[in-house]
Amino acid sequence: MLTVLGIGLLRTILASGHPTAIIPPPRPSTAAQAAGAWLLLRSFANGCTAMTGVEAVSTGSTAFREPRVKIARRTLSFIIGVLALLLAGIAWTCRAYEVSATRPDQSGYQTVLSLITTAVVGRNWFYYLTIVSILMVLVLQANTAFTGFPNVCRAIAQDGYLPYSFTSRGRRLVYSHGIFLLAFLSAALLIAFRGVTDRLIPLFAVGAFLAFTLSQAGMVAHWKRAGGVHARHSMLINGVGAIATAITVVIVIASKFVEGAWITLIAIPGILFLMRAVRRHYDRARHELASPYPLLTAKLHSPIVVVPIEGWNKITQKALRFALTLSSEIIAFQVSTSDEPHDLEKRWGTLVESPARETGLPVPTLKVLRSPYRAVIHPTVNYIHMLEREHPDREIAVVIPQLVEKHWYEYFLHRRRGELLAALLVLEDEPRINIINVPWHLQA
Amino acid sequence: MLTVLGIGLLRTILASGHPTAIIPPPRPSTAAQAAGAWLLLRSFANGCTAMTGVEAVSTGSTAFREPRVKIARRTLSFIIGVLALLLAGIAWTCRAYEVSATRPDQSGYQTVLSLITTAVVGRNWFYYLTIVSILMVLVLQANTAFTGFPNVCRAIAQDGYLPYSFTSRGRRLVYSHGIFLLAFLSAALLIAFRGVTDRLIPLFAVGAFLAFTLSQAGMVAHWKRAGGVHARHSMLINGVGAIATAITVVIVIASKFVEGAWITLIAIPGILFLMRAVRRHYDRARHELASPYPLLTAKLHSPIVVVPIEGWNKITQKALRFALTLSSEIIAFQVSTSDEPHDLEKRWGTLVESPARETGLPVPTLKVLRSPYRAVIHPTVNYIHMLEREHPDREIAVVIPQLVEKHWYEYFLHRRRGELLAALLVLEDEPRINIINVPWHLQA
Repeated sequence: MLTVLGIGLLRTILASGHPTAIIPPPRPSTAAQAAGAWLLLRSFANGCTAMTGVEAVSTGSTAFREPRVKIARRTLSFIIGVLALLLAGIAWTCRAYEVSATRPDQSGYQTVLSLITTAVVGRNWFYYLTIVSILMVLVLQANTAFTGFPNVCRAIAQDGYLPYSFTSRGRRLVYSHGIFLLAFLSAALLIAFRGVTDRLIPLFAVGAFLAFTLSQAGMVAHWKRAGGVHARHSMLINGVGAIATAITVVIVIASKFVEGAWITLIAIPGILFLMRAVRRHYDRARHELASPYPLLTAKLHSPIVVVPIEGWNKITQKALRFALTLSSEIIAFQVSTSDEPHDLEKRWGTLVESPARETGLPVPTLKVLRSPYRAVIHPTVNYIHMLEREHPDREIAVVIPQLVEKHWYEYFLHRRRGELLAALLVLEDEPRINIINVPWHLQA
Repeated sequence: MLTVLGIGLLRTILASGHPTAIIPPPRPSTAAQAAGAWLLLRSFANGCTAMTGVEAVSTGSTAFREPRVKIARRTLSFIIGVLALLLAGIAWTCRAYEVSATRPDQSGYQTVLSLITTAVVGRNWFYYLTIVSILMVLVLQANTAFTGFPNVCRAIAQDGYLPYSFTSRGRRLVYSHGIFLLAFLSAALLIAFRGVTDRLIPLFAVGAFLAFTLSQAGMVAHWKRAGGVHARHSMLINGVGAIATAITVVIVIASKFVEGAWITLIAIPGILFLMRAVRRHYDRARHELASPYPLLTAKLHSPIVVVPIEGWNKITQKALRFALTLSSEIIAFQVSTSDEPHDLEKRWGTLVESPARETGLPVPTLKVLRSPYRAVIHPTVNYIHMLEREHPDREIAVVIPQLVEKHWYEYFLHRRRGELLAALLVLEDEPRINIINVPWHLQA
């Protein structure tokens, strides 16, 4: 940072020594701009926007070592001094070398800093060093947002106005979801505005000064409530501040309305509405789920276990064995279609019934349904719903064998009937249907 | 179809009456093409490709009413006659009006048919009627592939060389997966070749003539095996056919190698390799899962049920109640982090233990784990794996409460810890861990 400032100072010093540009800057375009009061308003809005940089220091002041206030004051004074020096230097150099800004939405665009550096030192290694240094400072600057935004999201999420996931810290102690959201949003804005950040300034100005207005007004309310000796004096200062920034907001919106400030007039109420909706959902959900009472242990019946099966193989056997440990009422359910006509009705006695009877276990029954139109999943869902209606006081447990492949690309080689059935059963608003996944890890 | 043919005939008749073009076609570009033997080879390859259209009739002959052979012969003769007439008419008109083809990869491209129609009748309603009619015929023509391709896929899938899903007919009695695949592949080809179908002809020619060669060679083998009076004669015909088409394949590959025929040399072995891999996977999986034996009913123990809980609410209570019906050994597992420090250890006695004891039910135990780095899911997974290792002869059932929202957009408002936990537990190759989803359908 100091290096760049040094280079900046050096540049202004060098500038006084070389009054003619090494590489002359492009001539200014004769853009006819509406002059007078309108121009004044616009420059006031731009100037106010430039002021907000100073505010970042006070936000970050908690990171200073003690005595905080003293160090923060010294830092602020130093920064303001450097800024004033740089700004004056740039303004003076611009006049001396006849540098004027190029339009950012046209080809051949350069920043004013790039134009000045080219004019003063030419396009050599020193030019690139300067530009890379400026880029580095801007990258560090961008980092500010990535520390602040996730914290704001967390604070809002803790009050229930944003999804809970913003409150959970990742393994690196940062609120990862907020960082991802900010990265996504800023990328989207850059793409939407085609990388011309100048067009984003109106959005920023409205947002920042609205925030200043609200915080100043909040301080007025604070002093009113707190009372005390200096209260009236402080109220006056904050009141003037609130009015000044409020006027700025109005000016920025009015003067930059067409250039993008209208977006904030839509976005801010929209975001507020969404946040209220999130909070309402959470309130309702909490109210629905809250229960301070002890566990109800009455009226507990073992569930009716349904095992949908396709054929007789090790997966079916594993699912049936697990079902036998859960309940005494087990129904194996098979759908027979014209494409898959084989059913287990004839072999059920030898395959399942006699072994179960011999070991004194409950005997699973087999239910085969002929499906004339080759549908398999929907008849199964319907059967389970029918079973649920027939037993209004029982829980239903559907044991779904799940094939787990070794490699992800084998996923498409097997029918996903189990997953589909589970998804359909869960999505229906039937609270007494529970899904039991019995996995089979394919070794092949 | 007949209307279009009529228009085509009408056009050639009209052409003899108006020897000068109403709107003159663009001059031919003086593209220097390598003449002589090379040109002859190329036109032979193109001509052979054009012949394949006739073959579609014999493929579709099963759809004719009886007597099939007679009707099919009559149809073929009629089509060949019409084709010859149209081709001669187009060739003659091209010469008469000095129409020559434009390059399909340059702007201002028109088909030869469009050029002829413009030249003969001008750009009026009749031109657009003709072009729309041709388009309709081509759309019907494209349908051929959508009936044939899914059938081929089904046949291959039945032999286990493509995923099983290609064998299942949708509700409209067609093999939907094949249709989707064909639609996707043809769209991809059109995009890759930027809509210039001429470039696809080499691919088509190699594929079609390779198929003809294989089928003719197959017929030779068939006659050899079948024997009989006419066998030698038929073998000769099919043998000549096989050699002729094989030569065509070589010619097409050689003359159109750079234009795209090389793709088939990569794609065909690639597809064969993939299909063999699919078959190998199915063979291994079937071998692994096959079991003709009756159900093993020995050594069945009720499972250890683990209920991961976040706090005390109705979802937790529902999950615990369901767990109580399944087994006598229930462990509630809670992770306590610095972000979520509240645990149920002090209240467990009154909330769960005493009610369970009073009704003579098994008493669930609570296990609280302090997680210093705020991880919740991985400690849970580790605990369940530890439990599995400690009880090598028991099944583990993990009861995961699942929140089901009313609207899809509410999905992101709740932590998906349950889903994530279930996915992690299933993906691990631990066959004794079963997942039980207990749904809670949010009414809010």
